[in-house]
Amino acid sequence: MSKRKTMVMDGNEATAHVAYAFSEIAAIYPITPSSPMAEKTDEWSANGRKNLFDQTVTLVEMQSEAGAVGAVHGASEAGVLATTFTASQGLMLMIPTLLRLSGNRLPAVLHVASRTVGTHAMCIFGDHSDVMQCRQTGIAQLCSGSVQECMDLAGVAHLSAIKGSLPFMHFFDGFRTSHELQKIEVLDYEELGSLLDRDAVAAFRARSLNPEHPTLRCTVQNSDIFFQCREANNEYYDALPGIVEDYMAKIGGLTGREYHLFNYYGAPDADRVIVAMGSVSGAIEETVDYLNARGEKVGFVQVHLFRPFSLKHFLAAFPSTVKRVAVLDRCKEMGAGGEPLYQDVCAAFINKADRPEIYGGRYGLGAKDTTPAQIKAVFDNLALAQPKADFSIGIEDDVTHLSLPLGPALDCGGEGTVNCKFWGLGSDGTVGANKNSIKIIGDRTPQYAQAYFEYDAKKSFGLTCSHLRFGKTPIRSSYLVKRADFLACHNQSYLGKYDMVEELKDGGTFLLNCDWKPEELGEKLPARVKRYLAEHDIRFYIIDGLAIAQELGLGNHYNLVLQAAFFSLANIIPTEEAVTYMKEAAEKTYRTKGADVVAKNQAAIDSGIHGVQRIEVPAAWKEAQDAPPVADEDIPAFVRNLLEPINAQKGDSLPVSAFREISDGTMPLGTSAYEKRGIATQIPVWNKELCLQCNRCSFVCPHAVIRPYLLNDEEAKAAPEGFAYCDAKGAAAKGLHYAIQISNLDCTGCGSCANSCIAKEKAIVMKPAREVPYHKEAWEY
Amino acid sequence: MSKRKTMVMDGNEATAHVAYAFSEIAAIYPITPSSPMAEKTDEWSANGRKNLFDQTVTLVEMQSEAGAVGAVHGASEAGVLATTFTASQGLMLMIPTLLRLSGNRLPAVLHVASRTVGTHAMCIFGDHSDVMQCRQTGIAQLCSGSVQECMDLAGVAHLSAIKGSLPFMHFFDGFRTSHELQKIEVLDYEELGSLLDRDAVAAFRARSLNPEHPTLRCTVQNSDIFFQCREANNEYYDALPGIVEDYMAKIGGLTGREYHLFNYYGAPDADRVIVAMGSVSGAIEETVDYLNARGEKVGFVQVHLFRPFSLKHFLAAFPSTVKRVAVLDRCKEMGAGGEPLYQDVCAAFINKADRPEIYGGRYGLGAKDTTPAQIKAVFDNLALAQPKADFSIGIEDDVTHLSLPLGPALDCGGEGTVNCKFWGLGSDGTVGANKNSIKIIGDRTPQYAQAYFEYDAKKSFGLTCSHLRFGKTPIRSSYLVKRADFLACHNQSYLGKYDMVEELKDGGTFLLNCDWKPEELGEKLPARVKRYLAEHDIRFYIIDGLAIAQELGLGNHYNLVLQAAFFSLANIIPTEEAVTYMKEAAEKTYRTKGADVVAKNQAAIDSGIHGVQRIEVPAAWKEAQDAPPVADEDIPAFVRNLLEPINAQKGDSLPVSAFREISDGTMPLGTSAYEKRGIATQIPVWNKELCLQCNRCSFVCPHAVIRPYLLNDEEAKAAPEGFAYCDAKGAAAKGLHYAIQISNLDCTGCGSCANSCIAKEKAIVMKPAREVPYHKEAWEY
Repeated sequence: MSKRKTMVMDGNEATAHVAYAFSEIAAIYPITPSSPMAEKTDEWSANGRKNLFDQTVTLVEMQSEAGAVGAVHGASEAGVLATTFTASQGLMLMIPTLLRLSGNRLPAVLHVASRTVGTHAMCIFGDHSDVMQCRQTGIAQLCSGSVQECMDLAGVAHLSAIKGSLPFMHFFDGFRTSHELQKIEVLDYEELGSLLDRDAVAAFRARSLNPEHPTLRCTVQNSDIFFQCREANNEYYDALPGIVEDYMAKIGGLTGREYHLFNYYGAPDADRVIVAMGSVSGAIEETVDYLNARGEKVGFVQVHLFRPFSLKHFLAAFPSTVKRVAVLDRCKEMGAGGEPLYQDVCAAFINKADRPEIYGGRYGLGAKDTTPAQIKAVFDNLALAQPKADFSIGIEDDVTHLSLPLGPALDCGGEGTVNCKFWGLGSDGTVGANKNSIKIIGDRTPQYAQAYFEYDAKKSFGLTCSHLRFGKTPIRSSYLVKRADFLACHNQSYLGKYDMVEELKDGGTFLLNCDWKPEELGEKLPARVKRYLAEHDIRFYIIDGLAIAQELGLGNHYNLVLQAAFFSLANIIPTEEAVTYMKEAAEKTYRTKGADVVAKNQAAIDSGIHGVQRIEVPAAWKEAQDAPPVADEDIPAFVRNLLEPINAQKGDSLPVSAFREISDGTMPLGTSAYEKRGIATQIPVWNKELCLQCNRCSFVCPHAVIRPYLLNDEEAKAAPEGFAYCDAKGAAAKGLHYAIQISNLDCTGCGSCANSCIAKEKAIVMKPAREVPYHKEAWEY
Repeated sequence: MSKRKTMVMDGNEATAHVAYAFSEIAAIYPITPSSPMAEKTDEWSANGRKNLFDQTVTLVEMQSEAGAVGAVHGASEAGVLATTFTASQGLMLMIPTLLRLSGNRLPAVLHVASRTVGTHAMCIFGDHSDVMQCRQTGIAQLCSGSVQECMDLAGVAHLSAIKGSLPFMHFFDGFRTSHELQKIEVLDYEELGSLLDRDAVAAFRARSLNPEHPTLRCTVQNSDIFFQCREANNEYYDALPGIVEDYMAKIGGLTGREYHLFNYYGAPDADRVIVAMGSVSGAIEETVDYLNARGEKVGFVQVHLFRPFSLKHFLAAFPSTVKRVAVLDRCKEMGAGGEPLYQDVCAAFINKADRPEIYGGRYGLGAKDTTPAQIKAVFDNLALAQPKADFSIGIEDDVTHLSLPLGPALDCGGEGTVNCKFWGLGSDGTVGANKNSIKIIGDRTPQYAQAYFEYDAKKSFGLTCSHLRFGKTPIRSSYLVKRADFLACHNQSYLGKYDMVEELKDGGTFLLNCDWKPEELGEKLPARVKRYLAEHDIRFYIIDGLAIAQELGLGNHYNLVLQAAFFSLANIIPTEEAVTYMKEAAEKTYRTKGADVVAKNQAAIDSGIHGVQRIEVPAAWKEAQDAPPVADEDIPAFVRNLLEPINAQKGDSLPVSAFREISDGTMPLGTSAYEKRGIATQIPVWNKELCLQCNRCSFVCPHAVIRPYLLNDEEAKAAPEGFAYCDAKGAAAKGLHYAIQISNLDCTGCGSCANSCIAKEKAIVMKPAREVPYHKEAWEY
């Protein structure tokens, strides 16, 4: 790594950093996963950061994305450098105006964290279906494949837009790049400013709509001249690839990183080549290295400038030895003659006498994780006598049989890279703690670091998985950690639900946060877990984070405890150093809340280090027997076949056929009744003696877990054991009985109920889940 | 022609006729050129017409096209068969919802009169840039190439949508097909109903959102299942081409017209083939016939089902002898790797060992007229040793040099077809009269008839050109009349402005509506016109329509006079028959206005027949000398180089280089000052004695032609000859002079001023233009 300043940041921040420099106005309507770009811009603007024109950026929030891009158009017409940030449905609303921006040749720049466009269902995750919907609008499209590329190429978009007098869309994969934390080199504004063509800026302002030299735009043209006027724009599109390549060379000169419209990576005499763009590039490069190291001859053409598509540069990127090409598209255009990038490649080669065969496939829709094993399957397909022509990877298509067979996982990451994975509960602090950890390692050590966070759709109290990598070489692995050196389970209820420890490498470290005592583990752990720990020589640790936190008066904020435990076990940096950095960070975070709070949190760090308890895995666990399967109750087929695997985090393995009945997006109702998560670490307990019967606890419960009932004598008499009730208060309920019923298995333990209780002495209190018995019959009554 | 009922109608009406049958709700937001579909639906609904379900269609007008398609989506979700009609920018607003309609697999049908999407400028005319913006939305796209195809294929769209459970866009060329009048066979509702799969309708209703059997749609899916669920829709897209082909066969069984997903036309052993879709099909078929009759071997693949693009059917459409293919796209996607249909064709052939070479070109953008000569240029290009790979036709591209050289016009129409052309003034009744003429010939005789109307952007008082064809064989010529058998000029001012008579065939007929006496013609006609008439043996007639109309008390409604004159000269049907039909039509049109009005109009018909005056063209006119060119005044380059040719109807001949400076759509201001049209046949004259000086005449003039002035003594003294003024009325203007100044050359003769005058005896009266002297200095003063 050069001496340039490095920082840990995600793709959104890297992009916003550059966009801010070149923009005078940012018109926004934030949408996932692009929102942080707008937020950062807002924050910097509020703090008075200056752009390259010594102005603070004016941020305007509009009524929708249609308005945002309209404001960008208006500003651009008036000679103001404008930007916006968007994705998916938001981008769809911009399409009509993109056509005008390109028609008027205005140098506005959009930064898009690309995200799936809603079809049969919405999906907040990343693929290229949104940006591909814009490929015919005449806007230039430049793709970054990593966080570092966002930093390096976002500027190329702005610089080329200004010089080339055309609008740009700079895009990168939503979440995978927009939200992946990476340690990257940062370009400073002085460097960026040195590349700016200020004459081009002046020319842009000179041709703007201006009362001092008024002109007219948005006229209506008839059949006699429209066509000629359209073709008169060809020159600008013809010139643009050269301008982009030139700025890429200049950025390369500053950074030492070599960028082209189409970057080739791999064997100079490759016989098989993949063409793709976006974050999959990292996984492909790793696979190319892996295969070439094993005697194959393969390569990869990474597309940066997708529009204008420069035929000349594209063809020049290929070694002359190539016999077969596979084009990977991250979108599915139903009914099309082929996916978009594939069609570009076909058209590029069509009349070449010595053309390679071209095959096309889809990957990563809705952010389906794309792994080296999948990439290898693509190269393997190209080696077949008759390759599959229209294929998919990452799924099992047992209906239209388009998917390629998948081999075993490949171990592709850089040598010495440490892979860590954390299973947390949404809002339990796991993600935040991991962000701190990676910043500590990234900023305080020479190591490279990467972090990616998976959330499920439940957000708070849903499942989170944190995927962290650390290493001495740059980390290209643009996919989830599935073979972990270190694995942490921050919620004991997960052990029975998810196949988790199976992702540990032999000899790896497993940290379980639980309130089980060592002697209880034999009974509490599922047999499957016990067998894996024993058979794979796992170093097993437990800690009771909640108990420690509560003892320190931190309530259920046990994230620092677990972070400290991680540092003490994962061996990435010496524990003492880590403690120092963590304590500094805690001081910085909590300073404003007072010395007491700082002290408690710093104590939590010490407790985390010392609270970890090594468990010797008994050899007998190898023989652990699974409990007999529970007799199936009356569970609908949809729940059994789809909901249960999905809730068990096994949705990836469901084949296409599983979705035949619901492929139009129709879902049955009432399915949450079958999803008893039991995730709460603390459960409310009702004290009928103290209760005012005000029902506030029920009213505030966000999960509808607390429900008040009135019963008559007959009903009260018939109630099962464990069903508590008392006399109902108030004249209107005279003679009736009152009960508060709490569904332990649906509760998230958020404590809203207890906080809301207005009884003099609280009638609802939170108790550790282990102390609260669950009366199934009582709840169901 | 079979015994089926025939009618003269345009593509919009043909489509609306079928759409009405299959729709329960039509949600609309009308936009040119699709509006008449909504209007017809509204009219039929108001009149109680029943659809196939014995309902009147519910028509809902929304707040925008986004709302219209939203209503279609909502209705479809609720199990209601829904349609909408749109184009261009309206269609752009529908894109996000099209993705949902296809994702939910709802059988909604859009009918699109395809129109240019705004880029550097808006354009209300037709090309495929709007429908191509939707090709990746998953909606099926079915293209009709003629008015008859609209009638035949609109139903295929609805029937296949219902059976295939997918939304359809049925589209056809805006104006060229949507507004072209053709005599076509009409399908009745009984026939259409016999093809409807009522079980599929029931299944559609059964899976709708319904409180009786509630389900959930529009969920959010995560990375684990989104991809599989998407691919689970493949089956439906795979099945759709077969469903469409099946319905095409059924429609073919009814009509005797053979439709396929891809229709082949031409030599069974063709070596060169064009692929295209839309109205250009007619011109291509004519050219194929023309060339094959002269020993060439060429063919044409007409695309009907563009999405889903069926590879199997496409490849099967080609003769095995094909060596080279040219794909014509009616859109320009700036920066793309190729236009959309071209890319489909490349992808279809890419890995075929015996593939032809594929070349792509653009035509007809913004409704640029596409002629057989242009199509021949495409076939000629394919015959070159090295064909041009990315070409354009219909323009001269002297900047990027992509255009193909154009040979002379080909005479391709059906044998015995009569071509007529009428130059009229917007709102002078020419278009309406021609519509009547074609309905008379189409409905009352066995002849085929076609009419197409060109309007300029000025609408009222702009230029109109009517292109009429009549013949004994179906008329496929999908382009303007440029070689006329009969030519009428309805406004004498046009003769000096437009190259008009040059479009007459040798021995053709020229009818001039003018107030010139025969003896004045030698002086009034431009030398150019006189020479052409004499050299090309033109039969020359004049008539003074305005004088006749005014004499009959019809004001300036002289359209019936000229229609009668046309019938008496054009020799398409016997004059007496024509008179009978015209009088019947007049009776029907004016019946409600009283017998007197009917009589006047019928008298106009007789006067038209008899008022025509044959002019013997003197041989000496061959020697007519052009007047010396007027010395150029201080005219800006933009006006001289662009505005003047455009206003002279020579915009088509401007090369691409003429637009380099304004290719981003920027226009200078104030150019109308240089466009002195002088089109008024009557001019207001101000009588200063009668004037109240209320300024109403100025206020109501829509063209800002009448302007009141106050002058002081000095100004009044300096006024040039012919400048009339009087004492200003009112205390505030005491001592000043008052004048109303009228710009004859900008006046349209609409008469609003005279109508608005509230003086006891009118101070503004309209007088024939020839009687009103024009004092240039006075006006400019």
